Amino acid sequence: MDNSKFIAVIGGSQPSSKESRLAEAIGHELAKQGAVLVCGGLGGVMEAACKGARSEDGVTVGILPGDSRDTANPYVQIPVVTGMGYARNVAVVKSAQAVIAIGGHYGTLSEISYALANGIPVIGLNTWSLSKNGKQDNSVTIVKSPAEAVEKALSLAGNR
Amino acid sequence: MDNSKFIAVIGGSQPSSKESRLAEAIGHELAKQGAVLVCGGLGGVMEAACKGARSEDGVTVGILPGDSRDTANPYVQIPVVTGMGYARNVAVVKSAQAVIAIGGHYGTLSEISYALANGIPVIGLNTWSLSKNGKQDNSVTIVKSPAEAVEKALSLAGNR
Amino acid sequence: MDNSKFIAVIGGSQPSSKESRLAEAIGHELAKQGAVLVCGGLGGVMEAACKGARSEDGVTVGILPGDSRDTANPYVQIPVVTGMGYARNVAVVKSAQAVIAIGGHYGTLSEISYALANGIPVIGLNTWSLSKNGKQDNSVTIVKSPAEAVEKALSLAGNR
Amino acid sequence: MDNSKFIAVIGGSQPSSKESRLAEAIGHELAKQGAVLVCGGLGGVMEAACKGARSEDGVTVGILPGDSRDTANPYVQIPVVTGMGYARNVAVVKSAQAVIAIGGHYGTLSEISYALANGIPVIGLNTWSLSKNGKQDNSVTIVKSPAEAVEKALSLAGNR
Repeated sequence: MDNSKFIAVIGGSQPSSKESRLAEAIGHELAKQGAVLVCGGLGGVMEAACKGARSEDGVTVGILPGDSRDTANPYVQIPVVTGMGYARNVAVVKSAQAVIAIGGHYGTLSEISYALANGIPVIGLNTWSLSKNGKQDNSVTIVKSPAEAVEKALSLAGNR
Repeated sequence: MDNSKFIAVIGGSQPSSKESRLAEAIGHELAKQGAVLVCGGLGGVMEAACKGARSEDGVTVGILPGDSRDTANPYVQIPVVTGMGYARNVAVVKSAQAVIAIGGHYGTLSEISYALANGIPVIGLNTWSLSKNGKQDNSVTIVKSPAEAVEKALSLAGNR
Repeated sequence: MDNSKFIAVIGGSQPSSKESRLAEAIGHELAKQGAVLVCGGLGGVMEAACKGARSEDGVTVGILPGDSRDTANPYVQIPVVTGMGYARNVAVVKSAQAVIAIGGHYGTLSEISYALANGIPVIGLNTWSLSKNGKQDNSVTIVKSPAEAVEKALSLAGNR
Repeated sequence: MDNSKFIAVIGGSQPSSKESRLAEAIGHELAKQGAVLVCGGLGGVMEAACKGARSEDGVTVGILPGDSRDTANPYVQIPVVTGMGYARNVAVVKSAQAVIAIGGHYGTLSEISYALANGIPVIGLNTWSLSKNGKQDNSVTIVKSPAEAVEKALSLAGNR
């Protein structure tokens, strides 16, 4: 595990079926490439990504908001129990060398923001786009497929 | 203070001079209306808002990321020292009944996200706008002036 | 408020009636001396201390573990909503220049520990005593009365 | 890893050489028994325990206070970067099913307190002992050797 890249996959707990398929494919590909998957440990996109990673014997870390390891999805191998609510979003992104965002709601947007604030590369699939005062912000690297998401994440993580 | 509304003013630590003027005017108006000002306690927009509030004897609360009360700007009356880094952004918005965002960078965006995730009304001046999958998200109430920002914040806070 | 000392009062949410009386007397005396009372914002010792402080028009800050300002006791003027569970104990002690511990259970002990780890003076009334490898640790200043607790807290806070 | 017990080893960053030897032996034994080692990720007792665990190919999780994975000791396989300072102590103990405390200073005492507050069993070697109002508190299970510490930790963890 020692030279493994740590990549976070973030997204909502109630994804569309397309988003779930994307997340599972990304988890699968990350594991194939030897990356450790970091996520928020709950259901939806987090669970689909962990399921994909476990199908390739990948390592999965779930950083949980609540007080019990029992809240982790069944594909989390390393449950980290913070008891800090959604302040744990900070730890999800800081523990990763790159972040892949799939869809998601405002919680996902907070994670994208934290990652960008910390200079951690963000790769986006069907997710938020940002502008300020009418100017587009292009800090999120937009990709079209799971394979491209993983390739970009690993290459951008390489610079950290 | 007991029936006072608690309103957060969020924004960057290196604002434009226009943003500083907006923040100071908003702080001033909030204090005039009897609201308690909550902010991240540091410089820039936070300091300008606190300065405006203190010019009307308003109460100012600064929720600090670092380990020392000495990092608060001089207009913070109640420094809260969290030592939790930018995880404190969660506490800034949760302590408010409405949030006014002025300009800002990714840290501000994380606060906007947390507020929306928690159902706390966000009023925006010259700040981020959001879209997902090509669809505009209109959850932030856009205003044109400090007076309008405060009026909206107090009226939306009234529902909580 | 600007030159006020910030003093935390910590203790359990299910105190004995003696502990409640001590907490109320301490809150009263702190307010009389112009100090701002910081606490965890909930019931028991926290509520008794706030009640005492409010009877002298003192300022009371409650740093809450949960997600809602409605969980604050009725004598908290400035509710800070962290949503971080008992990780908020860190913020309670860091926001104070000295800490007065009354009775208390393991949560109080965690606050005493954090304060000592941060070099913040701790004054104790009927509370924990500590030893390591058979050696007594005398870092907590033991007092006998509310008046003495407040006097020690204010004088030790003066050095910070 | 899926049925592995998660056991935290806590203690100071500047241990005596005896404490280091104890920590390393405990890490070694935990790994031999198939447990996952959770710790604060830094030096001293944390590093010695991780070193011991890695000598038996055990899995080591380090929950870091700072902002960078580079602060982890070299034997941490899974660095979790919280950026939350010593509020991360809460996550260290909550992520474990039992906690072994070796020596330690006030930070360790805060972790012992959090564990006891959460009903997580604590096993102690040369560490703090507690009393309140003159009454000894026997909640920490005192042991005499690394082997006994691990045996107790695994058996008490079994009840959770």
